[in-house]
Amino acid sequence: MMVIMKTKASEDQIHYVVKKIEEVGAKAHLSKGKYKTIIGAIGDREQIVKLPFKAYPGVEDVLPISKPYKLVSREFKPEDTIIDVGGVKIGGSYFAVMAGPCSIESEEQVMRSAEVVKKAGAQILRGGAYKPRTSPYSFQGLGEKGLKMMAKAREVTGMPIVTEVLDTRDVATVAKYADILQIGARNMQNFTLLTEVGKLKKPILLKKAFSCTIEETLMSAEYILKGGNTKVIICERGLRSFESATRNTLDISAIPIIKSLSHLPVIVDPSHATGKRDLIKPLGLAALAAGADGLMIEVHPAPEEALCDGPQSVTSTQFDDCMKSIISMAKYLGLKGIG
Amino acid sequence: MMVIMKTKASEDQIHYVVKKIEEVGAKAHLSKGKYKTIIGAIGDREQIVKLPFKAYPGVEDVLPISKPYKLVSREFKPEDTIIDVGGVKIGGSYFAVMAGPCSIESEEQVMRSAEVVKKAGAQILRGGAYKPRTSPYSFQGLGEKGLKMMAKAREVTGMPIVTEVLDTRDVATVAKYADILQIGARNMQNFTLLTEVGKLKKPILLKKAFSCTIEETLMSAEYILKGGNTKVIICERGLRSFESATRNTLDISAIPIIKSLSHLPVIVDPSHATGKRDLIKPLGLAALAAGADGLMIEVHPAPEEALCDGPQSVTSTQFDDCMKSIISMAKYLGLKGIG
Amino acid sequence: MMVIMKTKASEDQIHYVVKKIEEVGAKAHLSKGKYKTIIGAIGDREQIVKLPFKAYPGVEDVLPISKPYKLVSREFKPEDTIIDVGGVKIGGSYFAVMAGPCSIESEEQVMRSAEVVKKAGAQILRGGAYKPRTSPYSFQGLGEKGLKMMAKAREVTGMPIVTEVLDTRDVATVAKYADILQIGARNMQNFTLLTEVGKLKKPILLKKAFSCTIEETLMSAEYILKGGNTKVIICERGLRSFESATRNTLDISAIPIIKSLSHLPVIVDPSHATGKRDLIKPLGLAALAAGADGLMIEVHPAPEEALCDGPQSVTSTQFDDCMKSIISMAKYLGLKGIG
Amino acid sequence: MMVIMKTKASEDQIHYVVKKIEEVGAKAHLSKGKYKTIIGAIGDREQIVKLPFKAYPGVEDVLPISKPYKLVSREFKPEDTIIDVGGVKIGGSYFAVMAGPCSIESEEQVMRSAEVVKKAGAQILRGGAYKPRTSPYSFQGLGEKGLKMMAKAREVTGMPIVTEVLDTRDVATVAKYADILQIGARNMQNFTLLTEVGKLKKPILLKKAFSCTIEETLMSAEYILKGGNTKVIICERGLRSFESATRNTLDISAIPIIKSLSHLPVIVDPSHATGKRDLIKPLGLAALAAGADGLMIEVHPAPEEALCDGPQSVTSTQFDDCMKSIISMAKYLGLKGIG
Repeated sequence: MMVIMKTKASEDQIHYVVKKIEEVGAKAHLSKGKYKTIIGAIGDREQIVKLPFKAYPGVEDVLPISKPYKLVSREFKPEDTIIDVGGVKIGGSYFAVMAGPCSIESEEQVMRSAEVVKKAGAQILRGGAYKPRTSPYSFQGLGEKGLKMMAKAREVTGMPIVTEVLDTRDVATVAKYADILQIGARNMQNFTLLTEVGKLKKPILLKKAFSCTIEETLMSAEYILKGGNTKVIICERGLRSFESATRNTLDISAIPIIKSLSHLPVIVDPSHATGKRDLIKPLGLAALAAGADGLMIEVHPAPEEALCDGPQSVTSTQFDDCMKSIISMAKYLGLKGIG
Repeated sequence: MMVIMKTKASEDQIHYVVKKIEEVGAKAHLSKGKYKTIIGAIGDREQIVKLPFKAYPGVEDVLPISKPYKLVSREFKPEDTIIDVGGVKIGGSYFAVMAGPCSIESEEQVMRSAEVVKKAGAQILRGGAYKPRTSPYSFQGLGEKGLKMMAKAREVTGMPIVTEVLDTRDVATVAKYADILQIGARNMQNFTLLTEVGKLKKPILLKKAFSCTIEETLMSAEYILKGGNTKVIICERGLRSFESATRNTLDISAIPIIKSLSHLPVIVDPSHATGKRDLIKPLGLAALAAGADGLMIEVHPAPEEALCDGPQSVTSTQFDDCMKSIISMAKYLGLKGIG
Repeated sequence: MMVIMKTKASEDQIHYVVKKIEEVGAKAHLSKGKYKTIIGAIGDREQIVKLPFKAYPGVEDVLPISKPYKLVSREFKPEDTIIDVGGVKIGGSYFAVMAGPCSIESEEQVMRSAEVVKKAGAQILRGGAYKPRTSPYSFQGLGEKGLKMMAKAREVTGMPIVTEVLDTRDVATVAKYADILQIGARNMQNFTLLTEVGKLKKPILLKKAFSCTIEETLMSAEYILKGGNTKVIICERGLRSFESATRNTLDISAIPIIKSLSHLPVIVDPSHATGKRDLIKPLGLAALAAGADGLMIEVHPAPEEALCDGPQSVTSTQFDDCMKSIISMAKYLGLKGIG
Repeated sequence: MMVIMKTKASEDQIHYVVKKIEEVGAKAHLSKGKYKTIIGAIGDREQIVKLPFKAYPGVEDVLPISKPYKLVSREFKPEDTIIDVGGVKIGGSYFAVMAGPCSIESEEQVMRSAEVVKKAGAQILRGGAYKPRTSPYSFQGLGEKGLKMMAKAREVTGMPIVTEVLDTRDVATVAKYADILQIGARNMQNFTLLTEVGKLKKPILLKKAFSCTIEETLMSAEYILKGGNTKVIICERGLRSFESATRNTLDISAIPIIKSLSHLPVIVDPSHATGKRDLIKPLGLAALAAGADGLMIEVHPAPEEALCDGPQSVTSTQFDDCMKSIISMAKYLGLKGIG
């Protein structure tokens, strides 16, 4: 941490900062220029970040010189984390596609979806039983009934399942059925929920909030790892910008950046990022080319009847076509586990 | 709802849309132009919004022509909602200031803060016992112990208290102590939490998420009102933009806009919006001039010792000065309940 | 400038950076920690900023510790700049309102507008003769013919006039007629245009781009001052965010921030910031309360006939009402030059 | 255009809107619902868009139902535009890489850069002689002297050259030397400059502003086509968002979207979008996979000496490696003109 003192900071103010740094067992390095004094605080990061430097008199600015996360960082664990979900691997050079409907509507719909996505080559079945909806008047999901339908689809097809948990009170229930628990974008900074899933042994799919930075996303992952659960998959699904041609702006740069900063696998959800089914294929291929470890795609056997997110769901035929290109590209890139 | 058909939409596709509209008991108005056919769906909004128009074949776009919320709207209730919190009124022409430390750290700190803010003219005491922190290594709050300290400060000063609830499991506990329950910006779209506080009878302070629109904010308020709790205060605390001179960008326009769309009171939190104590006074006065019903300000007797948000907390002396200007302006504007 | 070296930076890499700093006549301060070495570069800022530190081997990051502008800064000139435009003062405690139509359409329209705004209490007449329009099919302005109409309105009413210049080739022509030359938001980073108006002696109204930061705005003002023209008025007119309830998001914080960083006067244009006439009054009052030195408001005698920006223009009656509140608030605040 | 009337709009107000539509020779379609009347205006788009509907009394909102551009649209010209630059084709299935230094610094630097990029497989040489710099204290380019150096590099290597023009006064000079004239991101809405280059016969590289939407970008291209110059290449180089890990956020979705809306070729500039050389390769490949027609990459033989944008320039060796992957991917995708 570098503390930049104001041009007119007094000696007393400088000493106050130095004293505070030393009080937490860290060392203070002074660098006095003609106009400015800079104080470097070197030592136990966890202690140093707790000091409210900006509130100290005479302080102009504080500049972090190390990352605020630890367990998720490449420095802490240089090799790629590979997550095994019922035999399906994600990360390293293993590539996985999670596909299925936005929300579970009926047993028939889940079963048809599962068959379609399996046949096309997807390895994991997605589907929502608890749905976060902007409007209280929208369909809110089938709850545990939906989870049971998902479990049945797993039984029949052998595909592991991923589904969202919204509330700390539902963590145990969802964990009973799901192979991967999803933390949705709107809950990425629901810290009590992160803490709860950090106590599980099951993999967590952490969706990057549309309003949060890469660093904040890694901090949320750190909450889970700090709890003891190291199986975190990060999912880029777009950020909120002024551009209105898509629902959100898929941040393709997030893939190589997160993979350079962290050992965790990174997947991409082009369906939620764009809200447009015509963009699933080009963005899915772009994600692959940029180094993603997987994709999450909404497929609905009859999108025009979907209770949720119809416009962004691809049909069975479109998904088939999409997967052909994805599998071909994955092979060209030398990825494993798919096709 | 206006459904715009594609230029080449077939008669069958047009009839399909009309049929779907009529199936939910609504009426379809056709307007056929040389190039485009537009279908207006008129009827029960709650039914119409459930139709996944964009997923229907031949549909180019869907344009809402009425607001997606109802109970929070001015059309539903034209007169201002005035909320009474232990004798302190907010809304209509009643103006209230909520002030206190970001987080409760000790009984002494709460008591000192309470005295300071009361003496300066604030009517409600704020303070956090459950803290949402980006880093798992930051101070997470004192929990129920902190709530008890708040309650004691209320006993001594007579000021009602407002404090945040983060988790559905804590709603009952927080409701036991608080006069107003705060839903923080990061939980504005935590729909299960909104549903829980909708069951209470106590006022809710709903902070606008830094990443959400005014319409989404009103939809979140609608969740609470739909549950039966009509006592909602909306708080503008800035949106996330590219400007880095402030932590967030206070959207001053949100005040007159929300007040024109809704009957609910609107307050402003310049402390969290800007992250800079020097801006509290000018932005507080601007909020007043733009029609806000109240302010929420972080005050800490010793900001340089604060465990959280020191840089944006004003000192006792600064708060005194700030309140003098605020009270004077409130009187100039003819507001009641303050000074 | 603080140069943060990578954890594994070699001694050679450190020496390379030090050598480069010393080559431009500056001093290098080394601060070696257990993990990181930080090098402070102290000396002539203009020389130091030219060094491409981030491109040097072994460099992790570069942190500026002083502002990149000089002539516009409060440090360079502590007292407020007061600009005199034909007897109308702006800045210090002088407050001015510039009002008039978005674009000049006819002599009759300018004359009527001028009378209306003068009678209501505005001091300066605005109007566009060269219009930057997103669409090549929209009305592009009357050019010099429009400037002559403006000049005639000045003759009759005695009000100074402000009008936009879009192109370096038109600077001389516009300067012949205008009392203040406006650089529009889309040209805030048109550096050759800034350089040209920097050679004039007339005041420049520099509109903050909807996509630029406060610091970039001050850098653009620096271009003008560096050319020798110190009469710059900065105008906040909103930034582009995801919020769609207004055309742009008026950054009310920009007023106190720019005024603390710079000695230049700051005015606010609520018409372009919001695109909604109902917001002109509350945001105009908010700007006053936050410390603005003036307002720019679009007024059109018949907005429903306006060739440009009708929806955000207030009518004569609305402007009258608006000015009554503004003048009253200005007096309450002790401002001079108005009412 | 759909005009939505307010719930309480009077018959007179409705007739006024209908009359105005008919006055410009268009037809008005009325659709009267229980609460709302909607009026569709069908006819000559150029006439209809000029009507200031939102300013008419009784109008609540106006919804465009057709695109505001014409000449750039796929509807106007369904087949891909292929642009030939001295034998190098861009668009259709022709892929081109433009590479070279950010700014021209010396003859030696240009010549070395040209050799390096040609050898690695790039087809077009880029380099800036007129530089738009945020700071007036930064290097502003060599001007015509730099253009001459570029021309010499073309003579020696046979590569066509692309370079930026900043000012209408320089268009003729730049056109004398350049094979492609670049309009930089900051000038994308410099409408007089767009109008000037619209008069040329040479190809124009139009960079999407970091603050503008896809629709606004197409409107700027429309300015050029309207002038008679149909040779426009659009370049995505990132938009400004809150994410600070990259300089801008590359909008990968813009590629398939622009290509579906328009017949013009689309290239991507990962160097300016990200500001980080490590991201050039993954984002370049992602752009290819998403359907881009080309790339623009900054290469500097000695980035640590570059007077501009060193951190984002790749070295000769890095560019070699980058191009190997790009050429391989282009062949995998069946693209022509490269490798």
